[in-house]
Amino acid sequence: MERRRPRLRELGFTLGSLPTGPLNAITDVPGIGVGHTTVITDQPTTTRTGVTVIMPRPVAELDQLAYGGLFSFNGNGEFTGSHWLAESGLVSGPIAITNTDQVGLVRDELVAYEAARSPALEWCLPLVGETWDGVLNDIHARGLRAEHVHQALDAASSPSGRGPVAEGNVGGGTGMICHGFKGGIGTSSRVVTTAGEQYTVGVLVQANYGHRELLTLDGRAVGSVIDHTVVPLPPDDAPAASGDTGSIIVVVATDAPLLADQCARLARRATVGLARVGGFGSDSSGDIFLAFATGNRLPAGATQPVDVRTLPHEALTPLFRGTAEATEEAIWNALCAAETMTGFRGATVHAIPLDRLTALA
Amino acid sequence: MERRRPRLRELGFTLGSLPTGPLNAITDVPGIGVGHTTVITDQPTTTRTGVTVIMPRPVAELDQLAYGGLFSFNGNGEFTGSHWLAESGLVSGPIAITNTDQVGLVRDELVAYEAARSPALEWCLPLVGETWDGVLNDIHARGLRAEHVHQALDAASSPSGRGPVAEGNVGGGTGMICHGFKGGIGTSSRVVTTAGEQYTVGVLVQANYGHRELLTLDGRAVGSVIDHTVVPLPPDDAPAASGDTGSIIVVVATDAPLLADQCARLARRATVGLARVGGFGSDSSGDIFLAFATGNRLPAGATQPVDVRTLPHEALTPLFRGTAEATEEAIWNALCAAETMTGFRGATVHAIPLDRLTALA
Amino acid sequence: MERRRPRLRELGFTLGSLPTGPLNAITDVPGIGVGHTTVITDQPTTTRTGVTVIMPRPVAELDQLAYGGLFSFNGNGEFTGSHWLAESGLVSGPIAITNTDQVGLVRDELVAYEAARSPALEWCLPLVGETWDGVLNDIHARGLRAEHVHQALDAASSPSGRGPVAEGNVGGGTGMICHGFKGGIGTSSRVVTTAGEQYTVGVLVQANYGHRELLTLDGRAVGSVIDHTVVPLPPDDAPAASGDTGSIIVVVATDAPLLADQCARLARRATVGLARVGGFGSDSSGDIFLAFATGNRLPAGATQPVDVRTLPHEALTPLFRGTAEATEEAIWNALCAAETMTGFRGATVHAIPLDRLTALA
Amino acid sequence: MERRRPRLRELGFTLGSLPTGPLNAITDVPGIGVGHTTVITDQPTTTRTGVTVIMPRPVAELDQLAYGGLFSFNGNGEFTGSHWLAESGLVSGPIAITNTDQVGLVRDELVAYEAARSPALEWCLPLVGETWDGVLNDIHARGLRAEHVHQALDAASSPSGRGPVAEGNVGGGTGMICHGFKGGIGTSSRVVTTAGEQYTVGVLVQANYGHRELLTLDGRAVGSVIDHTVVPLPPDDAPAASGDTGSIIVVVATDAPLLADQCARLARRATVGLARVGGFGSDSSGDIFLAFATGNRLPAGATQPVDVRTLPHEALTPLFRGTAEATEEAIWNALCAAETMTGFRGATVHAIPLDRLTALA
Repeated sequence: MERRRPRLRELGFTLGSLPTGPLNAITDVPGIGVGHTTVITDQPTTTRTGVTVIMPRPVAELDQLAYGGLFSFNGNGEFTGSHWLAESGLVSGPIAITNTDQVGLVRDELVAYEAARSPALEWCLPLVGETWDGVLNDIHARGLRAEHVHQALDAASSPSGRGPVAEGNVGGGTGMICHGFKGGIGTSSRVVTTAGEQYTVGVLVQANYGHRELLTLDGRAVGSVIDHTVVPLPPDDAPAASGDTGSIIVVVATDAPLLADQCARLARRATVGLARVGGFGSDSSGDIFLAFATGNRLPAGATQPVDVRTLPHEALTPLFRGTAEATEEAIWNALCAAETMTGFRGATVHAIPLDRLTALA
Repeated sequence: MERRRPRLRELGFTLGSLPTGPLNAITDVPGIGVGHTTVITDQPTTTRTGVTVIMPRPVAELDQLAYGGLFSFNGNGEFTGSHWLAESGLVSGPIAITNTDQVGLVRDELVAYEAARSPALEWCLPLVGETWDGVLNDIHARGLRAEHVHQALDAASSPSGRGPVAEGNVGGGTGMICHGFKGGIGTSSRVVTTAGEQYTVGVLVQANYGHRELLTLDGRAVGSVIDHTVVPLPPDDAPAASGDTGSIIVVVATDAPLLADQCARLARRATVGLARVGGFGSDSSGDIFLAFATGNRLPAGATQPVDVRTLPHEALTPLFRGTAEATEEAIWNALCAAETMTGFRGATVHAIPLDRLTALA
Repeated sequence: MERRRPRLRELGFTLGSLPTGPLNAITDVPGIGVGHTTVITDQPTTTRTGVTVIMPRPVAELDQLAYGGLFSFNGNGEFTGSHWLAESGLVSGPIAITNTDQVGLVRDELVAYEAARSPALEWCLPLVGETWDGVLNDIHARGLRAEHVHQALDAASSPSGRGPVAEGNVGGGTGMICHGFKGGIGTSSRVVTTAGEQYTVGVLVQANYGHRELLTLDGRAVGSVIDHTVVPLPPDDAPAASGDTGSIIVVVATDAPLLADQCARLARRATVGLARVGGFGSDSSGDIFLAFATGNRLPAGATQPVDVRTLPHEALTPLFRGTAEATEEAIWNALCAAETMTGFRGATVHAIPLDRLTALA
Repeated sequence: MERRRPRLRELGFTLGSLPTGPLNAITDVPGIGVGHTTVITDQPTTTRTGVTVIMPRPVAELDQLAYGGLFSFNGNGEFTGSHWLAESGLVSGPIAITNTDQVGLVRDELVAYEAARSPALEWCLPLVGETWDGVLNDIHARGLRAEHVHQALDAASSPSGRGPVAEGNVGGGTGMICHGFKGGIGTSSRVVTTAGEQYTVGVLVQANYGHRELLTLDGRAVGSVIDHTVVPLPPDDAPAASGDTGSIIVVVATDAPLLADQCARLARRATVGLARVGGFGSDSSGDIFLAFATGNRLPAGATQPVDVRTLPHEALTPLFRGTAEATEEAIWNALCAAETMTGFRGATVHAIPLDRLTALA
């Protein structure tokens, strides 16, 4: 991995009380892979976009379905595949996040990928979310192409996809803005002991929401103390604006043996992490949270009853805390990693000045 | 069981293609018990009401929780306990159905029953539904008393509660009206083979909805061929009325190993049975359907992961058909069993004339 | 319009009791336009697919948003745009139905169409549903192209798009199968008087679900009396099959002044029409129903409170009946209009023999 | 009002940036009344419970229905009336909060109250929530009686019910525990300008949830700095406990002209306020949030279309912020007002030491 800006913990901050996994990333959940394709071009138009793919298991194990559930805190966004997820509770293939205009492209390419992987497949209903990068990216020019999706699928499927996760201006997060600073992809994890076992909960966010004045770091008002004249706001993002035009997708993964409705319970707790950073789900924000659990393996095409395990509901509370903490930290890792970017129509969005954060530590 | 009117099959009709269980009742699902308390008094006021209790398991096994789910086709009704059911997917104690004004009484008595049964119990959130019997019952006089609830609980807990189920003017169904005829409690079951095993799906309804003109028996328009002058409509139920003031509660039970969200899928299929009889969910109808599955046993208070089984979703289709068929027949069994009743303010609601049905067979 | 097979009423059948609009089509709702692109090719591969577009208003009036709501009776399908619909209750542009693999293409092209129509548009979240035509169509070859979507948009926007609606093997319905016969697009309408006004409810279906043995015409078992040896079943659709591999999308429109949640109530009633024809939502069926109401006009980009009207809930009951009746008849119109088709891998799906229907009248 | 502990603002803290209404209470929303009945007895058993009633309008105006919506962040609780609220979006009478065992009593008494108020009323489905006071209250002894409900109804209906609201150990909040300190009823409000008009959003909470170690005041860790040996934890509430056994009901009211689904959007934002105080919805917590808007008046029994107004969705963002801020402050007002209480089995729950808060200001 190339030289990068420090992550939040490297600046001296610890959010919450639970320990992280070794990578402090969603890939701490065994078997999960992440791949990004970042698309940055200046000709024929200004493209600042991409796609991020999350593999719920290694490809060879994808026919062992996982349980999942979704929560829409504010549904000003798209997440394909959610009707079947709500009906079946099953996650059967890769999950992707991209820009708003090209959800359809990514969704159809995931169908093609699955059809190629399983020749007998009749249909599938992939999970693809989005946030809007139209400030930095000439979004209606649709710079993402089918090959980019397959590159991200390949990256997520490779062994290195199951290692550290690049953050900031990468993949679906390339052109994103968060709390008036450059945003993008971030990740974090927590290790939880409950019901006599240790489980990992990992979170990956595509963070593209929020007002600068509300940005909060572990209780400290951060955004409001950074002078707009020193670190300018994004274009058209006046200090007193009442709304924000972004969104946040949160993907929560765990190796705990949860059922579908228990995953949905986890997904709702992403709201807590978001709130602690300063989000509140403004009208224009598509705040949609997906959680899945790899602790059960349902063979695709099973024709006999399947044995699964479930944590007692009482044992979920530590996982709820872990989800909230990891979501909060994943957003901060996105902010810390993202670098200043100039894009569409010359717009510049500034990285959060890390020295101002360390001054608060 | 005393002498009674014939059930639909005894009149020569068969609905659907799946076989019934031996009792053609919800009690064909092993372990399920049903108890009714019927309250009919003329002094100090006219009471035509009651309560029906469904035990999901024998009392000694109630600490082995079942999964369940609910569907509100038209939510003009009450069903307490549904927030926790939606959250947890768990059914932990008796389920009851009664009149609209006294849902609270029954619900609090079910709490008391559970607290007495489990001294360490801190709280519980019982499932209690209702339909409105205010034409025949002086409903605001609240004729049901706490002791009636406990009588129904005892009856549902007894061995005989796991046998044939009384239908018609009994329990919560005492004062009900269905498609312009006397309605009430009805039940039916289907036996289904799927995923290599045989399962039973049983249905119990408290039927109190519908227009006479829409009543349909296996595709035959029944209601519209019965002369209003020969069999009068209920008071205030003009032939051309655009709405109906009733409701229907459907309780679906199965011994299949379903998870909570699979139960909710079954509950939605009760709509199909209802539609075939002529219901369509008029605005004033509280059409709320609960399904639960006893095929998994979750120990209350578990502190370790629990092993459960789930049918592959594909294997649910026969259970969906069984639910639709048994719901349709349960409504008809309610209509067949119910007898003409005179009640509040002298109102008379007529039983459906069975000879008119047999004439159609 | 070219010579066509008769519609159900032309065969002498009347479903329900409410009158139809003049066209007995969704286009009886003033302002609604429908356009189909039908794609049938044998080279380079076998394409039997298409796309159908429904314009909720004439293009010049699209900035006057309508209310809408959705119901997923069985979510084994895709309907993009549903998160924002659930959040906002607003329908702001064209709605489309196509095949399962290419929902994404259609969705992204609808975004492009909207961006071209409204240069200031930052994002939109179009409503696109699907059913699976993989028996007759080489679905993974993705025969639908962007230009086809725009052709359907143009057709739906033209004055003739607001006239009679082609049914059967057209548009998104081109390759569909229904109850073991050739299916496709169908439409119907009802005129309802309620709350002192007359309103129209129109329905358009893309019908691709069901078992032949369950097919029911106004209470008559139709499918089971048609000999499989005379009118063969579709390939791989054995008489005793327990599931069906199709789906049904129902789009309900009305000019009544409904709010979003009232639209969702209408959408749920499509279930009743479906049940009467013999559907019950088998596991593999994506049965998703969308309803919208043009009776309110919300200016896009409003910055002040907007005046709207709502029918009292009690006044919805006739609209519920109209929705159920029109859904039932729309499915039948799809069956009546669809012609025998041979497609992918030589598979032939037979039209329902109309003489067998008239023999039942 | 008797001498009382200071509210949070009186201690020098300001949460959020929006101004409060004159009372900083839910009663800043014009027409809203609040009444408490507090039941404290030591014989024949230890009763520490009560009921709080919220009138959405003055009694004379109750036939002008309001819109409302609900969000269950964690449904380990009861809120009767929610099926009809979900279906109709209408709030038609008083709302109540009480203890878990006696929801039914309160619900049935609200039916009786409505029946007495409107003799032609056939049925109603009152909104009644609860939290569990079983540490301080002998909850299974059911100390609340019907007369207490009517006293609270009377108090909420009186002119003084529309003034300042008593907080802390009153009404439904009498025996509650919050973040390891004495909890109860709290309230707050915000004044918001949006879409060219000024609106008030008011919140009332019954706060009975949370861990001491997570308690946070405007970003400051409060709970973890208060020594357990100086201010003991409640019985059985060990410092390292992973769950909490409480719940929180949040009632949000506004005079903005919102529709039902817009109210539900507000309700979801209570989660943000809860998260900022340190809540995260532990498994055992019934965190159910109700919002209603009095800005529209729907005449009960209307038979013609009704004119209503709606804010553009974009204009809701300030109301979302107001809801989050007022929820956060209402919880803190509950904590500030509540006094140390000794109850059932001698258990003592301590008030939060206000001097420790002011030391942090």
